[in-house]
Amino acid sequence: MVVHPLSPLTKAELERARDVVKLQEAGHTLFFRSGCLQEPVKSELVPFLQAEHEGRLTDDTPRPPRLALLQYDVIHAASKSVQYTQSIIDLGLGKQVERRVASPQRQASISLKEFGIFQDACVNSPVFKDAMAEFAIPEHFVIAIDPWPYGGPDPGEDVPRVMQGLVFARDTSSKNPDSNYYGNHIPIAPVVDLATGEVIRVDRLATGGEEDGIDAHPRQAAPKPLFENVKPAEYIEELLDRPLRTDMKPINITQPEGASFTVHTDNLVEWQKWRFRLGFTPREGAVLHDLCYDNRPILYRLSYSELTVPYADPRPPFHRKQAFDLGDGGFGLSANNLELGCDCLGAIHYFDNFLVEPSGDPKLVKATVCLHEQDNGIGWKHTNYRTKRAVVARHRELVVQCAVTMANYVYVFAYKLDTAGGVTIETRATGIMSVVAIDAGKTSRYGNVVAPGVLAQNHQHMFAIRIDPAIDSYADGQSRVVVEESVPVRQDPATNPFGNYYEVRKKTVERACWVDAEPKLNRVIRLENATKKNDVSGRNVGYKLTAPATQLLLADEESRQARRARFAQHHAWVTGYREGELWAAGEFTNQSLEETGGVYDMVKRDDWFSGDADRHGANGDAASDGDVKGRLSSPVLWAVFGLTHNPRVEDWPVMPVEIHHLNLRPADFFTSNPALDVPTTRNQTSVTVACCSSDGE
Amino acid sequence: MVVHPLSPLTKAELERARDVVKLQEAGHTLFFRSGCLQEPVKSELVPFLQAEHEGRLTDDTPRPPRLALLQYDVIHAASKSVQYTQSIIDLGLGKQVERRVASPQRQASISLKEFGIFQDACVNSPVFKDAMAEFAIPEHFVIAIDPWPYGGPDPGEDVPRVMQGLVFARDTSSKNPDSNYYGNHIPIAPVVDLATGEVIRVDRLATGGEEDGIDAHPRQAAPKPLFENVKPAEYIEELLDRPLRTDMKPINITQPEGASFTVHTDNLVEWQKWRFRLGFTPREGAVLHDLCYDNRPILYRLSYSELTVPYADPRPPFHRKQAFDLGDGGFGLSANNLELGCDCLGAIHYFDNFLVEPSGDPKLVKATVCLHEQDNGIGWKHTNYRTKRAVVARHRELVVQCAVTMANYVYVFAYKLDTAGGVTIETRATGIMSVVAIDAGKTSRYGNVVAPGVLAQNHQHMFAIRIDPAIDSYADGQSRVVVEESVPVRQDPATNPFGNYYEVRKKTVERACWVDAEPKLNRVIRLENATKKNDVSGRNVGYKLTAPATQLLLADEESRQARRARFAQHHAWVTGYREGELWAAGEFTNQSLEETGGVYDMVKRDDWFSGDADRHGANGDAASDGDVKGRLSSPVLWAVFGLTHNPRVEDWPVMPVEIHHLNLRPADFFTSNPALDVPTTRNQTSVTVACCSSDGE
Repeated sequence: MVVHPLSPLTKAELERARDVVKLQEAGHTLFFRSGCLQEPVKSELVPFLQAEHEGRLTDDTPRPPRLALLQYDVIHAASKSVQYTQSIIDLGLGKQVERRVASPQRQASISLKEFGIFQDACVNSPVFKDAMAEFAIPEHFVIAIDPWPYGGPDPGEDVPRVMQGLVFARDTSSKNPDSNYYGNHIPIAPVVDLATGEVIRVDRLATGGEEDGIDAHPRQAAPKPLFENVKPAEYIEELLDRPLRTDMKPINITQPEGASFTVHTDNLVEWQKWRFRLGFTPREGAVLHDLCYDNRPILYRLSYSELTVPYADPRPPFHRKQAFDLGDGGFGLSANNLELGCDCLGAIHYFDNFLVEPSGDPKLVKATVCLHEQDNGIGWKHTNYRTKRAVVARHRELVVQCAVTMANYVYVFAYKLDTAGGVTIETRATGIMSVVAIDAGKTSRYGNVVAPGVLAQNHQHMFAIRIDPAIDSYADGQSRVVVEESVPVRQDPATNPFGNYYEVRKKTVERACWVDAEPKLNRVIRLENATKKNDVSGRNVGYKLTAPATQLLLADEESRQARRARFAQHHAWVTGYREGELWAAGEFTNQSLEETGGVYDMVKRDDWFSGDADRHGANGDAASDGDVKGRLSSPVLWAVFGLTHNPRVEDWPVMPVEIHHLNLRPADFFTSNPALDVPTTRNQTSVTVACCSSDGE
Repeated sequence: MVVHPLSPLTKAELERARDVVKLQEAGHTLFFRSGCLQEPVKSELVPFLQAEHEGRLTDDTPRPPRLALLQYDVIHAASKSVQYTQSIIDLGLGKQVERRVASPQRQASISLKEFGIFQDACVNSPVFKDAMAEFAIPEHFVIAIDPWPYGGPDPGEDVPRVMQGLVFARDTSSKNPDSNYYGNHIPIAPVVDLATGEVIRVDRLATGGEEDGIDAHPRQAAPKPLFENVKPAEYIEELLDRPLRTDMKPINITQPEGASFTVHTDNLVEWQKWRFRLGFTPREGAVLHDLCYDNRPILYRLSYSELTVPYADPRPPFHRKQAFDLGDGGFGLSANNLELGCDCLGAIHYFDNFLVEPSGDPKLVKATVCLHEQDNGIGWKHTNYRTKRAVVARHRELVVQCAVTMANYVYVFAYKLDTAGGVTIETRATGIMSVVAIDAGKTSRYGNVVAPGVLAQNHQHMFAIRIDPAIDSYADGQSRVVVEESVPVRQDPATNPFGNYYEVRKKTVERACWVDAEPKLNRVIRLENATKKNDVSGRNVGYKLTAPATQLLLADEESRQARRARFAQHHAWVTGYREGELWAAGEFTNQSLEETGGVYDMVKRDDWFSGDADRHGANGDAASDGDVKGRLSSPVLWAVFGLTHNPRVEDWPVMPVEIHHLNLRPADFFTSNPALDVPTTRNQTSVTVACCSSDGE
């Protein structure tokens, strides 16, 4: 049976790849971190997709080789040295075709196995025990340590592969392992060498308020009692401090005729003229490939690329609280097992995925992505005021949803396709905030006191979405990026005599660059086909990205935080396509000093997007800039947005979702409203609810 | 039976008010425009609401007098003069207590009756017939004229009460009165004197493209044939140019145990700790009064205040295309009769309303507001990565929805309350764009060709929402407005050694002013109680307004368009409360020359919000500025947002909704997540959908 080139690896394929690697690396201990499909090279996949869409696919159609990517540590028993290694295995040939070893300065993302190592390392360590001796903790509390990425090392600091930990204590008096411990922070942060399992240091944390300095208190002679007056921060129903609401009656969403989508072999999804292939990677979670409408391509690939969460508390070592949730962690690795009737309502299809165990064995993970339809209110309406006839079509959406848990925190991601040809990228932030201790009665400029003794520090969540366009064509050089602005024009007798005119200016992006949001000019980024015109308007067919202008990274641009996340300093980046370049902050973010190989570096290459070599020559000083060499490329768009989170008390103990939307909408892609053929049928199951008391009239 | 002071007028009350007015104005012809509750004066209502919320209400509690507001023209038979008159009737006393006559320069909003006058006036007019003779129109087309507000007169222009019209032709060959005529524009604009019913002028409209000037073509000798190659622009299913989708299976939303909300007498709504009174006015449509959570007040009143739609085509007379959809029209007067299973799904309560006929008789209008609950995805979630237990609460919303039709256009408005204590003001723009003719084959910088011969002009929709706060108290001087910013801070050895710190700055608004959005600083407007502190954080209890920064009015600030809509030049205004001040662009917008009595004037008054008279004295130069006198006041917040609409081909013939959200979220109003007690029960009716083809593994 022939699988599609974009189909995720099967169990058998992962096993085969593992076996090839084990053979290749024989004699060394291997610690497998992840494994997934090595996606085909675009130039090889595109002809295949074109044949597929044109119905020309036969057994003889050339197929890109089927490849697996395995990421693992090679542990040399004698030297104890660890080499992070990435191998690409040709599954057809059964052999390794590429092997890359990262330099020792680069740290792979953190695996769940390392989470496990952490707590054991701490509790057995004399250094940690000594630090803990500073505190007197009631007997019915047990230690729970949440490992965290170490963040960016300080200038001059030389650290091996490490993690830091936030130390909490769980109250066992309820005998419930889900009692929430995040309100009980012990103000120390152990740092563990992950290779040796040794606690190399325990940082002491400041717990003061407005009036205190930025250093931790000096250590006191007598143990400081903790959690004597702690207020429970429970969210599970059996421990809740209040009764559950009893007046919330069920809303049932049912589809008696079934779902309108079809999920085919090889993760092909079809729904309401849309089609795409669902990918899933350890780092990104759900990915949309080959997104088409009515067999016309729109996007080659759509994915979350990075998310960094920098904290704004300046008191060391809190400045090192900066996670990269894809590069340090991995959305796919952290994906929740979604549950029917909880995470999604209605008629749901669940996708399972394989991850790779430290042993190299594939492990089936259930229900990491859910797929369902939803009604999102009125889609279009017109009421003829003469005849009184109202015509209403509902706005239907297909939702591809994942949820990921990053220790305390949860994100819910959705790609939503709709009946009007739109794509919405929805991000919900929820879960438990990362909090620290604050002395009783104090308040802080670094965050908000969300419960007695609990400080939720101010922080940001900075996201990058990677959008690889294929606007009505997969052919090279067909997609272009255009910046559109609506610009005020001064009153002028000849051209604007009454002052009401504004000009719509469009400028094609000709070279790699960043673009910031500018609401004053209603700056909009359009993805267009460079040559195909809309039959009606004569304008280039396209899609436009509309995204609310959110705050960019606040950290000082010379700070470690900012240098590691240059991508978060602009709202959009347009870079030249290069094979495998998927990471806005670079491939290696864990313990990084600088963003390396991220969008900032990609733009420095100074790629150009149109075939006009003369024009490039005229400006072209980039090609001489050392290893940074520009070339004619297809543009890739990276959209950046952020949530500045100055915590509210309402965000405790589990925060209500904060929702962000980024929209891609057709803009002269179609020749009329694509939802015009949505039936305007009346739904037959809706009912009226009477006024529950007698009428006042 | 005693009605609540905020209860809309009953039929009997409207009749009584009409009778009082008719008696008072005996001897004159009356043309009634509208009638509704004259809301109680705030200082009289607040003690009543306080008693109500504290359970102290008895038959002896003082009640504000029950008042009706009637708006009508007094037509003097002899002089033919028309006086627009507003009378307030005390329904208890059965007498008129106030009567205001507008100056002849002020124009009341347009009534539906005037819509009717318009078309008849035109088709019978020789001036109009002469203008029409320029065109040769196939016999099976009939004329359909959409009356439009005249917009702002040109400098020096002296016009009586008029309307202009956009002239279309409906193809009758389908014999369907709902055949869409908006694609068939005849490029003339009649101007009708509404008092005399005479066509006073017919403006000729330009139809050229990029290369043509701003004037209309000279009139040609031979009639110009129109609509010979017209492409139908149908949206009703029996005339559609494409088959309806057959693969969209129903989504049913059912509530087998009924709705969770209760609608009591006098439009009192209770749902999930929320309660409010639903008001409905001819100008604003749905209004929320006395919005409380857990019996704690949050808002005294929430309403749409104004919406202006300026067009950017500089070719006269298109510069006069600027509607004020509340001041010139009226959301309540234009409200759709909502239909079960079309406009809302699920278990729906409909509110009916009374409007007033030209005769003065009340007229029942059915289902102008619908109320229902909806599920909006995951509300909060935490997955304990140690125990794997995931806890998910859904985000439930109560939706108060209206839809209004403004000739061609439709807006759908919703106030959404949610289980996390949030309020979302949702605006959907849909309907048919206001389009004009363009010569075949031409394109324009003033808009987009959305169908052959059809130009959709660039335009903006500028909204103002009025938010009258009562943050945890109705007492005067208790609510204040605070601007919060998150500000970057330079790296500094003493206070910000690693450069990750940012400062959260809060500044209380002490005087009336405007505030613009500033995404770079994440500027947020907080509504706070000036004295009550959150028990946990010690910060003032409050709500924050988060609104995406949208483009402001583009017209030149000296233009008529801009002068009539100064409110649209800033994102927020904070003004001192004055009784009856509800209109961001002033009470009279129809044919206005300037925004008069709108937020711009209110701010000029220089009211101040804190009792510190000394400080005011130090700055206080405003009190001497003629009739503009400041005083100590309570702040009212006006939130402005806009949609810059450069039309897409996809917006034709009926546009897919463009959705805008403005959020009010609790910010230290509660002592923890208010949705914590939402049951995390699994919904029992959700089902899984299998993969529809065989699995690839």
